[in-house]
Amino acid sequence: MSGDLDPAIAAQLKRDADGLVAAVVRDHHTGEVLMLAWMDDQALHRTLRTGRATYWSRSRGRHWVKGETSGHYQLVRSAALDCDGDAVLLSVEQIGVACHTGERTCFHRPLPVAASPGSGPTPPVPGDAGPAAQGGRP
Amino acid sequence: MSGDLDPAIAAQLKRDADGLVAAVVRDHHTGEVLMLAWMDDQALHRTLRTGRATYWSRSRGRHWVKGETSGHYQLVRSAALDCDGDAVLLSVEQIGVACHTGERTCFHRPLPVAASPGSGPTPPVPGDAGPAAQGGRP
Repeated sequence: MSGDLDPAIAAQLKRDADGLVAAVVRDHHTGEVLMLAWMDDQALHRTLRTGRATYWSRSRGRHWVKGETSGHYQLVRSAALDCDGDAVLLSVEQIGVACHTGERTCFHRPLPVAASPGSGPTPPVPGDAGPAAQGGRP
Repeated sequence: MSGDLDPAIAAQLKRDADGLVAAVVRDHHTGEVLMLAWMDDQALHRTLRTGRATYWSRSRGRHWVKGETSGHYQLVRSAALDCDGDAVLLSVEQIGVACHTGERTCFHRPLPVAASPGSGPTPPVPGDAGPAAQGGRP
């Protein structure tokens, strides 16, 4: 079911068994990746029409406008679909913080990574998980 | 099934019905979001242990080391888990391009977005989908 989503866009979506695509959300100013959420056609339609990020909550089984309770809205500055249609990228003006824990980004739990081939010191970009995520590389 | 993944990490994952979590991949240098892929425990384990991004292909039903056929490897510089454990963020050194279409990023299909409340001209960051994605905003 596409809701009111533009049929030309709906035709490009590759939904999972629950009718959802992934939505990757980044900060429009810093490029920081803020969160991952889920959208059905109606959520994508509302997001594109209103400019406020709107998702499908898998745990609550309903739509939610990000910020509707916290005030931490996401004003969408641009959106793009990926090559195979199973993910949307939103660039947003994040009001307040993205994570319900109070962290700025939901990706705040570093995982240890072994040094990969060709590793060398490289400057992190804003929002990088930082040295703690480098897994003890020299 | 966790493969050889550190049980402390495995315990934090919230997998979907197919045993997968989403993996958001960004360029370590520019912050650009490159692609979204999927990981089971074994793919995450291999990624963290080898430093080369390894995913689960839902279409092919097998693991794949990104770049194993194209040479476009992703050398993982850092990794982080999100607050609810259903998504991983990788910051990678992208060899060549990320997308199988030859585009640098998989998110190369702009979607039109209506002007959101409080809209104003803001400078895009690298990897932003650009003016074409702004949906004709003035």
